[in-house]
Amino acid sequence: MDMAKAKAPRRPRAETPKGFRDYFGADVTERKEMLDRIATVYHRYGFDPLETSAVETVEALGKFLPDVDRPNEGVFAWQEEPGADKPGDWLALRYDLTAPLARVAAQFRNDLPNPYRRFAMGPVWRNEKPGPGRFRQFYQCDADTVGAPSVAADAEICAMLSDALEEVGIPRGDYIVRINNRKVLNGVLETMGVSDLGQAADVLRTIDKFDKVGEEGVRQLLGKGRLDASGAYIDGVGLAPEQGEPVLLFLTSKGADNTATLTNLRAAVGDSADGLAGVDELDQIVTLLAAQGYGPDRIVIDPSVVRGLGYYTGPVFEAELTFEILDEKGRPRQFGSVAGGGRYDDLVKRFTGQAVPATGVSIGVDRLLAALRAKGRIGAEATHGPVVVTVMDRDRMADYMAMVGELRAAGIRAEVYLGNPKNFGNQLKYADKRGAPVAVIQGEDEAQRGVVQIKDLILGAKIAAQATHEEWKEQPAQTEVPRAELVAAVRRILEG
Amino acid sequence: MDMAKAKAPRRPRAETPKGFRDYFGADVTERKEMLDRIATVYHRYGFDPLETSAVETVEALGKFLPDVDRPNEGVFAWQEEPGADKPGDWLALRYDLTAPLARVAAQFRNDLPNPYRRFAMGPVWRNEKPGPGRFRQFYQCDADTVGAPSVAADAEICAMLSDALEEVGIPRGDYIVRINNRKVLNGVLETMGVSDLGQAADVLRTIDKFDKVGEEGVRQLLGKGRLDASGAYIDGVGLAPEQGEPVLLFLTSKGADNTATLTNLRAAVGDSADGLAGVDELDQIVTLLAAQGYGPDRIVIDPSVVRGLGYYTGPVFEAELTFEILDEKGRPRQFGSVAGGGRYDDLVKRFTGQAVPATGVSIGVDRLLAALRAKGRIGAEATHGPVVVTVMDRDRMADYMAMVGELRAAGIRAEVYLGNPKNFGNQLKYADKRGAPVAVIQGEDEAQRGVVQIKDLILGAKIAAQATHEEWKEQPAQTEVPRAELVAAVRRILEG
Repeated sequence: MDMAKAKAPRRPRAETPKGFRDYFGADVTERKEMLDRIATVYHRYGFDPLETSAVETVEALGKFLPDVDRPNEGVFAWQEEPGADKPGDWLALRYDLTAPLARVAAQFRNDLPNPYRRFAMGPVWRNEKPGPGRFRQFYQCDADTVGAPSVAADAEICAMLSDALEEVGIPRGDYIVRINNRKVLNGVLETMGVSDLGQAADVLRTIDKFDKVGEEGVRQLLGKGRLDASGAYIDGVGLAPEQGEPVLLFLTSKGADNTATLTNLRAAVGDSADGLAGVDELDQIVTLLAAQGYGPDRIVIDPSVVRGLGYYTGPVFEAELTFEILDEKGRPRQFGSVAGGGRYDDLVKRFTGQAVPATGVSIGVDRLLAALRAKGRIGAEATHGPVVVTVMDRDRMADYMAMVGELRAAGIRAEVYLGNPKNFGNQLKYADKRGAPVAVIQGEDEAQRGVVQIKDLILGAKIAAQATHEEWKEQPAQTEVPRAELVAAVRRILEG
Repeated sequence: MDMAKAKAPRRPRAETPKGFRDYFGADVTERKEMLDRIATVYHRYGFDPLETSAVETVEALGKFLPDVDRPNEGVFAWQEEPGADKPGDWLALRYDLTAPLARVAAQFRNDLPNPYRRFAMGPVWRNEKPGPGRFRQFYQCDADTVGAPSVAADAEICAMLSDALEEVGIPRGDYIVRINNRKVLNGVLETMGVSDLGQAADVLRTIDKFDKVGEEGVRQLLGKGRLDASGAYIDGVGLAPEQGEPVLLFLTSKGADNTATLTNLRAAVGDSADGLAGVDELDQIVTLLAAQGYGPDRIVIDPSVVRGLGYYTGPVFEAELTFEILDEKGRPRQFGSVAGGGRYDDLVKRFTGQAVPATGVSIGVDRLLAALRAKGRIGAEATHGPVVVTVMDRDRMADYMAMVGELRAAGIRAEVYLGNPKNFGNQLKYADKRGAPVAVIQGEDEAQRGVVQIKDLILGAKIAAQATHEEWKEQPAQTEVPRAELVAAVRRILEG
């Protein structure tokens, strides 16, 4: 054994694991404030918070059953110590908030109210290759109703989503909740005579490209195929031209108002009972919403919403922000989707064998936060740091702590400088780094005279940026006040 | 292959993994409210929130380096996919909030303010055998100051802890923060002539038993040994009787006030420079605290605090709740410790080689919550559920949703019943399960007359419990009001 190496072990790397991140200060408080606001809306709607354990059995997560010896595709998984007579369970970090809800709805079905409205906010983990803007731990914010077969539950989710967006600071007119229905699409497929599951899946994949390739592109892809922008030829589904038309009718059926859209949709589904039921559901949803005052300026039927149509079983919804922001190259673009959801009726069946209807929505926490920042709804005003009480005389720390204690007792965020006080410049650099609005200074001379110096650092920074050297030297941003007036003087500056 | 089995795969078990738990409704909101209150205090003291990733490299966690092929002793760990030219990193869930702080303080040392005050609240994970009341995921709530060598930082932590306890609802007089100092103990050991590290560790283990075995017990354990309550003989450290006396002087040196305690401690450490420095630090801490108005009714020197003395390097503190509660057998007992902390100066050194002074405190989230519940500070008033609007006529769902919309717009938590409305009894059972204070009822008859029935469920429950059948039949808990007065009538009941 190499003794030299044993004596000086390599130091561990101080690094956030790849694909993970740490949140500091305002990153934490801004997210928290947004989620708190959303929670007040969910609470008002009768939804209860649920916080499941971060860890689930791989078996309960389902999608990611360990096949052979690489169970951790997609999830972070590990095997428990084996028991005396059985192998250890595979455990994993949850990859979303829906799978744990399914487990809880099955496990506690005799204790939970039925229907069960719950919301959940918290991190989820994905074992994926990290990329720019793609992290392996991120927040989700979900609300779901389990056990409610009626489309009133879907309408309620849409209304609640609308309220939540307004509550966090997206004004009416800057967002739209669009609704579509998987059943309508099923009816369209039926009318087209597409009953083969594989062919239906091909059609679904094609309409998913509607946003990108438009009406003519979808028409080509449903037929023989299409020459891609890159020059590659994409094979089509191979339908005859007339056979594909109902899908195009469906995708482009948005009319001037909901009534017109519903009429167009009825035409697209033909005689299909499933399709007509889907159109009726959309009709009911907008009627229920209108009764509560949610008109098409907030929530509207839009058959061009195709995201999620493959996954959900009934109504689907998507919230889009309609204002423009500048992208990284300075070009204006629509902000786009910040939330989506829909009805999925096989949630609990995996566990119990009984079908349980469910519907819900998931808000993209990071995207909505980015939107609020882009709109200047949060983080806009420089939320300044604490008042910093500097230390001129190490032996009089008790005096400085008394000052900071008085400021805090008055509800003012304040700190005493706790580093090495020798170099006063370091203390002012510290105050600057903390974003301190005010520094409090009391040397021996001031202490004897019973006064403190109050330095307005915000004004000081302005003067430093604009003033001449002479003006700067007069230091108008620094005033002397009697010690007893410390709190009042600081408050005057903070209240601007 | 057995085709029958393949056709009917075993259903997954719907179970929270062993040792984990799910939090429902009030469990979530009560904890959140408590932590939010603590955060306002930490914020006022200039502490910034930090939320590190739940996952760390096993290397950064340190204590739990993978030895051979069982790296997951104590932590939940797994190995990353190997790269092209290197083995995969071992990752693990954090087991506390201090190890991630150490990593962050090293990694971001050039960007963070120095000193860095931070607080962190969140779950941590321990791979331990679960037991009663012992979970494998639980919350921690920490505040630490990194980079501040002065005991002013320790004093500040103690004051902040005191404020935090009062903020969450522990009144002054119901708690005490006790302070001790590892340096004083070091001085005591020096005076005793205990310089051998193994023997010092033996003495530390012995004084850890002071709470349990008392003064005479410690005396025996320092000497030849002691006959246990179970009849087993516990070997002693083997010190001569006089040699052990300074430790007993130390443990029992609490005087009538801090001044008396400090005098006793000076006697216990003899000529030891380290010991005298430790006593001076305690002196400074109480002086600094007194300057801010924190007297010995809140924070007091108490050398009998031995918990953590082995781990920390300077001052240690512990917050105890001093009121009695009834244990599971109905016997009164002191509630005991809810928070602890101290100074640990080698936090960042593992990563950078440079010693960085640090001090901090950790609040036992579950214990403090239990204390608040025991004192009736939270969860006492039956925080009732939402108003439930029942569905008498499925076709008039739009009317019921309009009612619930009006109630919510007025800030009243309200739900429409979303289950199958056929059986009205089920709707009332649902309202009961939800803890609804009010049920709203409107059948066809009421709709035609433009009225609604308002059922006061709280009053109804009281009457049902106390009234005769005749009284009950009169249903005074149910009143009819004009539809336009729905919100006002519900509010009257809610405001009692």
